[in-house]
Amino acid sequence: MAFVNEHFLQLQGSYLFSEVARKVKAFEAAHPQVRLIRLGIGDVTRPLPQACIEAMCRAVRELADARTFHGYGPEQGYDFLIKAILKHDFEERGITLSPSEIFISDGAKSDLGNLTELFRQDNLVAITDPVYPVYVDSNVMCGRAGVAGADGLWSKVTYLPCTGENGFVPELPDHRVDLVYLCYPNNPTGTTLTREQLKKWVDYALDNDALILFDAAYEAFISEPDVPHSIYEIPGAEQVAIEVRSFSKTAGFTGVRCGYTVVPEKVTARTEDGRRVALNPLWNRRQCTKFNGTSYITQRGAEAIYTPEGRRQVEETIAYYKENARIMREGFREAGLTVYGGVNSPYLWLKAPEGMTSWEFFDHLLHEMNVVGTPGSGFGPSGEGYLRLTAFGQREDCLEAMERIRRKGFSSAGKSSL
Amino acid sequence: MAFVNEHFLQLQGSYLFSEVARKVKAFEAAHPQVRLIRLGIGDVTRPLPQACIEAMCRAVRELADARTFHGYGPEQGYDFLIKAILKHDFEERGITLSPSEIFISDGAKSDLGNLTELFRQDNLVAITDPVYPVYVDSNVMCGRAGVAGADGLWSKVTYLPCTGENGFVPELPDHRVDLVYLCYPNNPTGTTLTREQLKKWVDYALDNDALILFDAAYEAFISEPDVPHSIYEIPGAEQVAIEVRSFSKTAGFTGVRCGYTVVPEKVTARTEDGRRVALNPLWNRRQCTKFNGTSYITQRGAEAIYTPEGRRQVEETIAYYKENARIMREGFREAGLTVYGGVNSPYLWLKAPEGMTSWEFFDHLLHEMNVVGTPGSGFGPSGEGYLRLTAFGQREDCLEAMERIRRKGFSSAGKSSL
Repeated sequence: MAFVNEHFLQLQGSYLFSEVARKVKAFEAAHPQVRLIRLGIGDVTRPLPQACIEAMCRAVRELADARTFHGYGPEQGYDFLIKAILKHDFEERGITLSPSEIFISDGAKSDLGNLTELFRQDNLVAITDPVYPVYVDSNVMCGRAGVAGADGLWSKVTYLPCTGENGFVPELPDHRVDLVYLCYPNNPTGTTLTREQLKKWVDYALDNDALILFDAAYEAFISEPDVPHSIYEIPGAEQVAIEVRSFSKTAGFTGVRCGYTVVPEKVTARTEDGRRVALNPLWNRRQCTKFNGTSYITQRGAEAIYTPEGRRQVEETIAYYKENARIMREGFREAGLTVYGGVNSPYLWLKAPEGMTSWEFFDHLLHEMNVVGTPGSGFGPSGEGYLRLTAFGQREDCLEAMERIRRKGFSSAGKSSL
Repeated sequence: MAFVNEHFLQLQGSYLFSEVARKVKAFEAAHPQVRLIRLGIGDVTRPLPQACIEAMCRAVRELADARTFHGYGPEQGYDFLIKAILKHDFEERGITLSPSEIFISDGAKSDLGNLTELFRQDNLVAITDPVYPVYVDSNVMCGRAGVAGADGLWSKVTYLPCTGENGFVPELPDHRVDLVYLCYPNNPTGTTLTREQLKKWVDYALDNDALILFDAAYEAFISEPDVPHSIYEIPGAEQVAIEVRSFSKTAGFTGVRCGYTVVPEKVTARTEDGRRVALNPLWNRRQCTKFNGTSYITQRGAEAIYTPEGRRQVEETIAYYKENARIMREGFREAGLTVYGGVNSPYLWLKAPEGMTSWEFFDHLLHEMNVVGTPGSGFGPSGEGYLRLTAFGQREDCLEAMERIRRKGFSSAGKSSL
């Protein structure tokens, strides 16, 4: 008699995006003549860099000839890509890593989900709040999150609030935590930590023998000099941090699927009897057992991101999205709203006008401006009163949305008007 | 203080392939003038079908234009591929499945490894012996296998011996098991179950509320009419079986990465308090949380396998490998050896000449014939006394290897000669 993993049964429904979809669908049915502008999407819209296209076409053609055919590749990824990553993502920032510390994957989501397997069930997890739901759900699935309260909070998870009040800088926990998820530039808030602010977390991990799972998927959007691109810019992080990277938002690889995870040789966790165990060989074993490497075609495409043409083309695309972000930041500010993020990130985090909840503000934007965002409360309790917008849309949509906002303004907004 | 998952520390080293590599390297260093023929490789060598190449080139070019760009796809896979699978892999064999029962992935290894997450740790696992190591290792990692004895056997795993003595047909277990891994056509033995033999297992699962994880990665090699291509050809299997498929050996996708898993809506497992839970939504949730879909390019390539040209080209490649298998079967038989498999499978399972262990036979082939195989004992205790060969090599290598065997014969083989 096969028994199910009952932790799965505790998972909450993925209410947020289905509820957004339901409301949008209902609005469209009632107002078929209105053109909605979707600024809530988390997916890229620009085409791939031409350098990647050409590299992938070449790679496909190689597979058409027995002499240049590639079968199983290394589970850890091809050397050609690992070398390009080491040189451009790390050496150029003064960070020395070895090839065996890089693991190419089919994306950050897979790695962030699968990394939970390396740890015992009773590790205490801390997450920033609001948060990318995968960190929580993947820990619920293995029983590490405890039970969900009526408020949706998990009994064994430590929530680190990030709001306008604390400048979106999470405070160090006042009790033991073992695994800390940090995502900077942050999804959903679009905010960052400075080098000094991130150093506090690395020092905390060093002092408390905690482990940081650092999600740097939005690194390519950083523009300010004081914002670290990698946690390994902070001394000591190579002992306490695993970093997850993605080409999804860097080079438009959301549909092509490629990312990588850095597990430095020095990163350890403890056994129950107090021995230190290096996590690098464990992650290697996990990947060799349950993963067969990333598509050769994809890896050749990712390698092309690091060529001079590839880098120039990626910069152009990122600049396009950042200009979208700037237009939206300015537009909402001119309309009197408080806006966070959007400078080192494709995400903007709007404070709802006085007294409005996230969903009320969502409804207001939908009905009054015909603009679709994502309610911040869907990312966690500290997201209440905020709305997430992204810069991944078309330029003309951003401009049109700002024009609507200029025209209508938020003077009519607020609880009383709804 | 982060604590490690100590089950990982119990994993045995992957001794088999590293030891083969070590011996081959030592031989080559000592005999640099000898050309070794490698018949142990489990990777394909023929190029991809031209239909797949063209489809993937088109898909890559689509990503170069914002109007035809594809970002995140459905985590479950694109409808175009799911429809082709349903029609050609199932409907044509009289099996009706719905699109929501198919989950496209980056390969069978990922799915087989990740499926273990759906079940409680204390399920009892049965595997055929010899076996593909991933089934065992992925259960070791989550603590389901118990502890390894000095003989390498896991205390909580039920081993179902498959040898020449029982015709490689595993006997039903005489005690409770919850999860049964079956792989047919089998890796490593190359043998199959007839419809009648597989029916016994489906009936067992129905009677005992067990679940079958059916690995059909080598289905494309089946030539005999009485061998089922899918477990769902057996009535009732849709209640008790999850089937995993791969395009790796069908169409040479080992480096492109695509497979799929069938989780019928009717397949259930139990909660501790006796409720039945459908596994389809659980696997869906697992994939949506920890996986972001398979590359669009790859899925377009896989779709092309099912076009008339694609099917013809796949048949040609399979025919090439099967002719290799036939040549090797006949060559070894003429040399007086007992050979299993190779008819419905790319694998041949050679019985070592009287009295030789797997490693002794491996050494004999390496030193006398300069042919490299894979020792059967590396796949489990019931593999002792056997050697695995594969048909994935070049035709001229198969012919040359058989010529060497004809020339030298096995008269000098046997324990006394070593």
